Order: sequence, then structure tokens, then C-alpha cells
Amino acid sequence: MQIVGTIADARRAVAAMPRPLALVPTMGALHAGHLALVARAQATCASVVATIFVNPLQFGPDEDFGRYPRAFPADVRALEAAGVALVFAPSVDAMYPNGFDTTVDPGAVGMRFEGALRPGHFRGVATVCTKLFAIFGADVAFFGAKDGQQVAVLRQVVRDLGLPVAIEVVPTQRDVDGLALSSRNAYLSDAERAAAPGLYRALRAMTAAVERGETDRQRIVAAGRTAIRTPLREAYLDVVDPETFVACDAAPRADGVRELLAIGSVWLGSTRLIDNVPFAVAPLRAIAGAAR
Amino acid sequence: MQIVGTIADARRAVAAMPRPLALVPTMGALHAGHLALVARAQATCASVVATIFVNPLQFGPDEDFGRYPRAFPADVRALEAAGVALVFAPSVDAMYPNGFDTTVDPGAVGMRFEGALRPGHFRGVATVCTKLFAIFGADVAFFGAKDGQQVAVLRQVVRDLGLPVAIEVVPTQRDVDGLALSSRNAYLSDAERAAAPGLYRALRAMTAAVERGETDRQRIVAAGRTAIRTPLREAYLDVVDPETFVACDAAPRADGVRELLAIGSVWLGSTRLIDNVPFAVAPLRAIAGAAR
Repeated sequence: MQIVGTIADARRAVAAMPRPLALVPTMGALHAGHLALVARAQATCASVVATIFVNPLQFGPDEDFGRYPRAFPADVRALEAAGVALVFAPSVDAMYPNGFDTTVDPGAVGMRFEGALRPGHFRGVATVCTKLFAIFGADVAFFGAKDGQQVAVLRQVVRDLGLPVAIEVVPTQRDVDGLALSSRNAYLSDAERAAAPGLYRALRAMTAAVERGETDRQRIVAAGRTAIRTPLREAYLDVVDPETFVACDAAPRADGVRELLAIGSVWLGSTRLIDNVPFAVAPLRAIAGAAR
Repeated sequence: MQIVGTIADARRAVAAMPRPLALVPTMGALHAGHLALVARAQATCASVVATIFVNPLQFGPDEDFGRYPRAFPADVRALEAAGVALVFAPSVDAMYPNGFDTTVDPGAVGMRFEGALRPGHFRGVATVCTKLFAIFGADVAFFGAKDGQQVAVLRQVVRDLGLPVAIEVVPTQRDVDGLALSSRNAYLSDAERAAAPGLYRALRAMTAAVERGETDRQRIVAAGRTAIRTPLREAYLDVVDPETFVACDAAPRADGVRELLAIGSVWLGSTRLIDNVPFAVAPLRAIAGAAR
């Protein structure tokens, strides 16, 4: 496994790699969720490149860029064991040298929910990913479903700019108690960690309400809210269209199955966690048919 | 020569073309300046693709998008005669379908001069060119030197985002009286057309001042200003660094030849023209040597 830190070395290293080429962008501090991305990449592509870069552009001035967990030696061992061909681990200067000034802005999809709580976050995500896609000329890039709005943002950018890369989404990896794996779980105290699965329970309570026939967004959210108890504090719970992240009712449509997302975020002390659960609403016709 | 209007058809058409692949983005209404781009592309690349797209994103609400000259049949004949392999002439909907929302912003280089007079213009240029580069996977893209700030903006974006395309700049084509060729020259009345070369004379007066040893930006501009007479009205005249478009004195540097740009823009009635003349300042050491 090669490890490179400059864009020029990265381009040279991938030039001769068999295609299709998979890209797995990470901020390091790898857990089983990241390794699921690598495994899916290995299964579907001839070469896998992983990147480790804690991207300052996607952190606000009061956020955790400085204390974001870093575990480079362990990350490298895990990626090598997983069969990754190349790790690109640039410095901030290598990615953003003096004079760097370009921004990729995904528009409205990046202004809601996480974008509202973290102004500029998705511009930073869109900018770094556009650059990583361009450096590697990757055929497929792999992202975790847990960061559902990030997926929506990147699909928007790839579609709008015609970028020649496919976005593949890998289901969220969870601990046995349901907590979605996240590098930020390392910030939790024991008591916070014990309470953290309440977020997933809230999202499951929302999809359970939908399964009982509830379509009203506010009532679905209210069902989830019952699972958010101290020390959890709700940042948001909602039902959204997974493509636009516009909040909506879970009303069926006549023209086919409707894919939706129950999304949520909670504070635990100074740590904020996010999670989501996808669900589908059967088409109106099928429901009418079932009622006949 | 193939002519296609959709992104999917464009991708299919270029997939089999010999490399290197040249891209010549235009807004149509072609003149000898555009054909010089095609000729340079032909001379250096195996395949040449031209695009004809009047890009609404780079026009302000009060600008000339609606009346910008369109001459599709003549353009196609000229490109075919010039040996272009493919013309991509999409509709606005094909480039920006419903839901399109992504913007590429080049930062400060796009805020000065043309960017100040045309807010959002260079975001529109950066966005459409990033998309055209991605659609075609072009190896080299050709632009005219007349649009000097556009060149600076695109170099900034390509450098910052690591886009795998080289930007080639072709010298400005001029009419016999010095007027830079531009599709917007078609807007001029006979009297305005007769006065229009005053812009180029102003820029040449600026570089002549530099040749006489003037280094002060304000005095260089003052030298140019004497050539701006009614019906010309100055929008701006200045000396800038061609990479950043930051205004500066023409002072020599110790570490090598300094490339600079005399830039200018004038109003003629409701038409605004732009032009620029590159010049170089010898290194300080050489000047000191000459004085000994």
C-alpha cells in the first residue's frame, strides 16, 4: 500500500491503477463504518484509494477541527489490512496552498438542517470532494448513509456539474445497541454513551408511526420526540425528501413508492450526534387496492 | 462534424475521439478570434470540440442575455470548415435542468473590475466552464486573451480544484485599426465603431509610458486616459497582476521579469467594451546593470 501526501504524487500513483477506480474519502479516526465503505469499494472496483484529510473548510470557527480525533498509524494499518492500494493523506497546505480561493456551493440542499446549524459546512464538503474527485478521476466514490445530507449535497453537485463519478452509499453501521458508528462517539462520556442510542430509538419510533399509517409530519416527529429524554437534547427531528432534504409529510404518491428519510440530531453535552433511517411509503394505488 | 444538444450525447460522442482532446467553449456569434482558438486547438490536439452556449448564469438581470447575438447556422459552417469534430450546442434546460443549484465561486479574483461591474458574472463563468470541462474530460481548453480576467478566474478554479485540464490562452485578434474582435462589437453604431479603437490606443499609451520608464500606476493610467475621448466613457483603466487582477505599480522586481497587464473598459452608448495589453518589466538587476 502506497501512502502519499501531495497531489502530484497522488496523480502519478493512480495513473497506472486498474479501473474502475474507487475513492473512499475519510477524515480518519476510522471505525467499522469506514471499513464497510472500503469493503463495498473492494467488491465492486478494481482499485481502491482512501483519503485521510480532516478538512478545515467544513468546520466552523467554533467547531471541533482542532480536537477532531486523529489516529493516523491505526488508520493506515486498518486500510492496508482492508486491501486499499493507495492512501492520500495531504497536509492542509497541500490541499489549500496560499492563494486558494475557490468554493463549490451546492445551493439550497446545503442550507437546511446540518447546513443551518453549521453555516458553510456543506460548501466545505462540496469543495473538498469536488477536488478529490478531480485529483483521482475516480469512477465511483463511497459515502456512508449516516451522513444523509452530505450524500444529498454530493449527488446535487455531481449531477449539476456533470462530474464523471458515481456516488455509492453504504448503509449505516451500528453498535449492538443501535448507536450509529461515528468518529465523534469518542467524545462521549460513559453516561452520554449509554444514553446515545435514544437518537436511533427516536428515529425508529418515527418510522413505526409511519408503519401504523401516520402520514402527518408533525405527528411523526412527535412520536420520535417521546424517545428523546435527558441527557439527550433535540437539535432536530424531521421527515425529509432524501434528495432535497426538504421537510415533508409521509403522504403516499400515486406514481410509485416514495423514499423518505427520518432524520435526527441530538446534543449530548457539547457533542452533537446525527443519524437517519430511510423508509418507503407505498404508492397510493396500492393502498387504495388494499382497501377494496 | 457532429452536432449534439444533450450531455449524454456529448459524452458518447467524445468517448471514442483520439486524444489529446481540445475544448473551445464559445457563446457563438463567432469571429476570427474564436477561429484563432480553433486553429490553435487543431495545431496542438488530436480532436477539437467546440461548444456554443449563451450561458444565462454569467449575465446579470439587466444585461444583454436576451439580445446577445446568435448566429447558429453561420457558426456551424465556420466550425465545420475549421475542422472541428463535434459541436455541443445545448439548450439552457439541458445545461441547467430543474433543480440545478450548484455554484462554483472563484473568490476574490472574480470580484474585481469585471466582477465588480457584473456581480455574479465570474461565478457563472466558473460554473459553466467547470461543467464543460467535466462533461468532455478535455485535456486542454482554449480561451482568448481579450477576456483576461476570465482567464485568471479559470486558472484559479483549475488550480484550486485540481481539475485535470490545461488552460491555453490565444492572443487577442484585432481589426486593422486595433479594435479587439468581440461579438459585442456588433452592437456599435458606425460612429461608435469609428471611436472604439480609442480603448486600444489608451492601453498602448499606458504601455508606452512604461517603456519610457514610468512605474507609478496612477501616472500610467493617466497616460492612457488621454486617449479616452467622447464618445468613449471610461469604465476603468488600470495596471494589474495577470494572475490575481490586483492593481499594482509597474515596479521591477529583483527576482525576474514581471508580467503585467494594462486593462481597460469603455462605454460606447449602452455597449461596454473590454481589452487588455500584456507587458513585461525587466528585473531590477538588469536595470541596475544598464545604469552602470
